[in-house]
Amino acid sequence: MPESKPTAGARNGRAIAEVTALLADYAACIDADDLEAWPDFFTADCHYKITTAYNHAKGLPVGLIYAHNRAMLEDRVVALRKANVYEPQRYRHIVSTPRITGGGVTGGDGGRIEAETGFLVVRTMHDGTQDLFASGVYLDRIDLSGNRPRFAEKIVVLDSDKVDTLLAIPL
Amino acid sequence: MPESKPTAGARNGRAIAEVTALLADYAACIDADDLEAWPDFFTADCHYKITTAYNHAKGLPVGLIYAHNRAMLEDRVVALRKANVYEPQRYRHIVSTPRITGGGVTGGDGGRIEAETGFLVVRTMHDGTQDLFASGVYLDRIDLSGNRPRFAEKIVVLDSDKVDTLLAIPL
Amino acid sequence: MPESKPTAGARNGRAIAEVTALLADYAACIDADDLEAWPDFFTADCHYKITTAYNHAKGLPVGLIYAHNRAMLEDRVVALRKANVYEPQRYRHIVSTPRITGGGVTGGDGGRIEAETGFLVVRTMHDGTQDLFASGVYLDRIDLSGNRPRFAEKIVVLDSDKVDTLLAIPL
Repeated sequence: MPESKPTAGARNGRAIAEVTALLADYAACIDADDLEAWPDFFTADCHYKITTAYNHAKGLPVGLIYAHNRAMLEDRVVALRKANVYEPQRYRHIVSTPRITGGGVTGGDGGRIEAETGFLVVRTMHDGTQDLFASGVYLDRIDLSGNRPRFAEKIVVLDSDKVDTLLAIPL
Repeated sequence: MPESKPTAGARNGRAIAEVTALLADYAACIDADDLEAWPDFFTADCHYKITTAYNHAKGLPVGLIYAHNRAMLEDRVVALRKANVYEPQRYRHIVSTPRITGGGVTGGDGGRIEAETGFLVVRTMHDGTQDLFASGVYLDRIDLSGNRPRFAEKIVVLDSDKVDTLLAIPL
Repeated sequence: MPESKPTAGARNGRAIAEVTALLADYAACIDADDLEAWPDFFTADCHYKITTAYNHAKGLPVGLIYAHNRAMLEDRVVALRKANVYEPQRYRHIVSTPRITGGGVTGGDGGRIEAETGFLVVRTMHDGTQDLFASGVYLDRIDLSGNRPRFAEKIVVLDSDKVDTLLAIPL
């Protein structure tokens, strides 16, 4: 469950701006099907996981998808490209406002920011029909020490346990 | 109907940051099912109302839900907990950008901000199916005089008149 | 396809604030059915187009709707008012965070900003049923030289090719 204690959000304007811009770029990368650029949003030793709210609340360690470095994300993109021989569906991420839950731009935490951000994804099928593909929350730990902000950890907590089709794209 | 006259939004950066952070915390509180923390987002003498766009446009005074102080919100949470003996559904608020329509952080209006903010709520049922639960606009009057920003008034104007299931959670 | 290269978003705080406020006002104008105020969000010599992701990716020039000045937008509103003799449906735009892709508030580009912004629109029918009406991305060129920011160009790229009902409202 996301922590719901009020954040000092308004006093973390710069941190919110950093995270907001990063998430907007991240979502646009996936929605533009520019998957080859996706791994560069992560640090080399990143942790990436897609799990469900139920599993996350129970503290179950196993996620639907788990990677403990960027190379695994790159392998995943190659696999997706091989699998998707048909014209891909379109996706549209709508990202809510980040809540800064730790760290800060000033580097009080070694130049890291922790944030929680709600999102939903709309899917458009080849025939034009659209549906709500997924919703959930990003639990992010962002590294500001590089030439651009990158995800040192991204845990994607999905609201639904129905996940069989979720392997189609990164989230 | 929400006022659509352009706001001085970009010139109210601080006010937008305050309201954005407050609404992000507010939505996260509900989505995390942390309902016991929900009343503290309101002032002791707050006004809270859920109504429909039709009733609001007609100026009909009666809302679907109405509370004229925080204690009524606390009573409501107790009632919801007693009613929800089954595992609750999940909700995900997606909140759009606030439009500052009055007041200001500088306290020109006694330390109040008035804002209008579109939102939608996705519901995830126990079996994993998801649907669009509600959409509408928050008409908020926010009190900045306390130790944290609080809603002195929150009018939730729903786009749809179908509201029978809406009593399940606060909005 | 939207460009997915990371923007200097966090370093363009003012530009993001300008665009965010403009888009929030723009969406509120349409959602409030205040269509007569809609053309004033554009410059007199604006270009406005609604197209599909498929056509946009293929570089097909013809859009679903095309206007090359504000007067054509005003004519469109008049036509819509004549056509809509029944009570209109309600629409709710949810606008994601803008990505600044060019220009800047400082006027390095003659006081223009270029931005890409994802959005979705929820429709509420007269009987209260709701559906996902549209999703896509705004490709905007915003003119800051006037008394308020205005769209010099707005290309609405829809995710879906199913567009027969899209003529009901501006997007």
